[in-house]
Amino acid sequence: MLNEVKVSFNRKDLLGLENLEPTEIETILDLAESFKEINLRPIKKVPTLRGKTIINLFYEPSTRTKMSFDIAAKRLSADTFSISKATSSMVKGETLLDTVRNLDAMNPDAIVIRHSAAGAPHWLASRLDISIINAGDGMHEHPTQALLDMLTMRQHKGKLEGLTVAIIGDISHSRVARSNIWGLSKMKAKVIVCGPPTMIPKDINKMPTEVTYNVDEVIEEADVIMILRIQQERQKEVLLPSLREYSKLYGINSDRLKKAKSDVLIMHPGPINRGVEISAEVADGPYSVILEQVSNGVAIRMAILYLTVGTTARQEP
Amino acid sequence: MLNEVKVSFNRKDLLGLENLEPTEIETILDLAESFKEINLRPIKKVPTLRGKTIINLFYEPSTRTKMSFDIAAKRLSADTFSISKATSSMVKGETLLDTVRNLDAMNPDAIVIRHSAAGAPHWLASRLDISIINAGDGMHEHPTQALLDMLTMRQHKGKLEGLTVAIIGDISHSRVARSNIWGLSKMKAKVIVCGPPTMIPKDINKMPTEVTYNVDEVIEEADVIMILRIQQERQKEVLLPSLREYSKLYGINSDRLKKAKSDVLIMHPGPINRGVEISAEVADGPYSVILEQVSNGVAIRMAILYLTVGTTARQEP
Amino acid sequence: MLNEVKVSFNRKDLLGLENLEPTEIETILDLAESFKEINLRPIKKVPTLRGKTIINLFYEPSTRTKMSFDIAAKRLSADTFSISKATSSMVKGETLLDTVRNLDAMNPDAIVIRHSAAGAPHWLASRLDISIINAGDGMHEHPTQALLDMLTMRQHKGKLEGLTVAIIGDISHSRVARSNIWGLSKMKAKVIVCGPPTMIPKDINKMPTEVTYNVDEVIEEADVIMILRIQQERQKEVLLPSLREYSKLYGINSDRLKKAKSDVLIMHPGPINRGVEISAEVADGPYSVILEQVSNGVAIRMAILYLTVGTTARQEP
Repeated sequence: MLNEVKVSFNRKDLLGLENLEPTEIETILDLAESFKEINLRPIKKVPTLRGKTIINLFYEPSTRTKMSFDIAAKRLSADTFSISKATSSMVKGETLLDTVRNLDAMNPDAIVIRHSAAGAPHWLASRLDISIINAGDGMHEHPTQALLDMLTMRQHKGKLEGLTVAIIGDISHSRVARSNIWGLSKMKAKVIVCGPPTMIPKDINKMPTEVTYNVDEVIEEADVIMILRIQQERQKEVLLPSLREYSKLYGINSDRLKKAKSDVLIMHPGPINRGVEISAEVADGPYSVILEQVSNGVAIRMAILYLTVGTTARQEP
Repeated sequence: MLNEVKVSFNRKDLLGLENLEPTEIETILDLAESFKEINLRPIKKVPTLRGKTIINLFYEPSTRTKMSFDIAAKRLSADTFSISKATSSMVKGETLLDTVRNLDAMNPDAIVIRHSAAGAPHWLASRLDISIINAGDGMHEHPTQALLDMLTMRQHKGKLEGLTVAIIGDISHSRVARSNIWGLSKMKAKVIVCGPPTMIPKDINKMPTEVTYNVDEVIEEADVIMILRIQQERQKEVLLPSLREYSKLYGINSDRLKKAKSDVLIMHPGPINRGVEISAEVADGPYSVILEQVSNGVAIRMAILYLTVGTTARQEP
Repeated sequence: MLNEVKVSFNRKDLLGLENLEPTEIETILDLAESFKEINLRPIKKVPTLRGKTIINLFYEPSTRTKMSFDIAAKRLSADTFSISKATSSMVKGETLLDTVRNLDAMNPDAIVIRHSAAGAPHWLASRLDISIINAGDGMHEHPTQALLDMLTMRQHKGKLEGLTVAIIGDISHSRVARSNIWGLSKMKAKVIVCGPPTMIPKDINKMPTEVTYNVDEVIEEADVIMILRIQQERQKEVLLPSLREYSKLYGINSDRLKKAKSDVLIMHPGPINRGVEISAEVADGPYSVILEQVSNGVAIRMAILYLTVGTTARQEP
């Protein structure tokens, strides 16, 4: 199965999509495609990473992403260990580098890290021999999320090249948006970000994306509509007058979708706020591939762990 | 070993005992009996559920039940993953159905759920193809607890039919009591609940149990005395004047046990409050099978996971 | 590999170093030496403890030690389960003995326990058949930490006999210091403890160690300098005027190390407070073996689990 995938990936880390080559992205998506099948078997386990140690080091709360990585690792027969900042004494009063060096001394094969500081995984990766996998760094990148998004699009649309992908919501604070912009543009898809002016970053023109404030216009044009979660805790920053106001102006509901293409895909990185950025009808409707994204997440993480940690891949680049 | 057990169980879920057939209960107890032996081996592991994914989703705190399920699953070689509400961001601001659908998209084989809302597991089970196992829903049912109680009684008494089981304590708030009432009555045991009038549910006459407020009388008659935990946090609700008062009127101590049958069994679902609902002498005394209940809990959960998730069982009903 | 180690250890528990024989300590160190190699393999897993159940029961917060035990157990193919006081309902309102008896009823093979009460593991070990492993009890002992320290010293110095080991810091509150004093003195190393008078226990003369308040003098003489962590939460007890004052008087920096032996070892049980008890230069400098200590910790815990839980060892004492 894996033999059929031409592997073009020779890195110890996955830090972001900004610096990956299109052939590397393609390798990851192809591998994930072949791993998907394992998750549907009665016995969902292969010995690929037996005897490997994967540490999930989450400085920001997460259940979904951490569990997805954990399931991916165990289905490849790796041993996994989790540290959350909330429950960890280790992390207190110790520098990030010291914490990771200490973990590294226990000879793990990879550390999956989520951290509030943009660039933290890159900084660690350059100082340590161990594989570092970015599970979200500040408002910077969340590469496995964008990869699972791209896998989902590719499965439905055949290819990424030529697609028009609208990303709607708080672009400024979204690492999901940034990773998708980098990844999709490399694969020759067109990205259009859309949201209230207060939620569009000032330096957006430095990124390979178009910008619009007109949500109804972009809905007509898009092959894929990716709706970002409104993080209610951000409300304090007065980026938006109110949830009701946001919902009225940018929330995606059936009415608004009437102008969309007949084969449009509705995506969301989750968890969804029903009735805020997305209506229940749309979330559960025929265009929604939100749960497929979650399924693809496990396959993408299996592929990433295989490429960075699996001996075969690194011995035979 | 398992070949000798005649399997009469063809459900994807274990939701409660109210709707099980006596033959189904018997299957579970027989299977658990045969699984008990695995827990005493030097190598306590069989490959039965290798490659299966079990998620423990606990919306209410639990250590004992969660660990029992976790040990049961791993001794059958399944992979397990736990989510507790306390440490989970996933769960916040997301509906229960959305959370479970998301987990389901990662292709687990079963979700073991504890939730404060009565009926939550049933509601999920009817909407999803995945196996749902009820680890306690509100004040409704806690089926695996009652099954382990019944296994313990059957081991000591030979059979359940004809036994008189007294359940003493706060019946109103006890899902353990409810599951035992349903299960035991199906197996033709007689149940008598006993407690202060404020702790007996008003609709108790709709359940297959007798009621008494006289603890000394019921002690004389019982083959099994099941003592419920007094939950000290309930005291605020002024169900009882004080712990000392409760202990004096309903607490089980050596003195009170003098009138009991010579082969009476003392049971308690744990954790015990020594000196409140049960005296230390009784808890540690010759009639107590409290720790056997805990051991049987692992075997019961192995049986339930095997019946709902194990391929053989579901392929050959 | 293991065949070459002459095993002289026939205990079910590891409670402390005070009561071990020198030959037992040697057995542990020799076995750990042979386990170290497993942690460097591409496939870091041996089937030694397959089907064994290890419970980590931590009443005090810990990430480092718990993870080290967890990794050790899984690399030997054991199944592990963790309970932390913070997240556990089990532990609330239940005696320690009841909690451990309940866990014991689930047929684990060992319980690794950290507890704030000195002697708690010993008390449990004498009441239960199960293996109890002390992962730190109050200010009493932390035997696996001292064993990993001794392994690190032996690897660098060839043998422990004749070494001079200075332990610098808050000796009064340190179980690490106590376990090292007992263990090192048994192996015929000389221990000198050093710290402000308020941090030296009054009954220090009952332990096999010398005492000094003069840090510069002891640095000249030592083959090994073990620096203890200053626990900032202890400051309230006014043991020290201020961190800056402590750092000036007892902190180990390059300047102070000029008088040290040219092959001195700098050790620290971690986590380090850079700039307080140890300067960054020293922590990262050529004499530091702090990260080797962490690596050796996994090997020591593998050896302890093997000796207490592994069938071969207990069948063939």
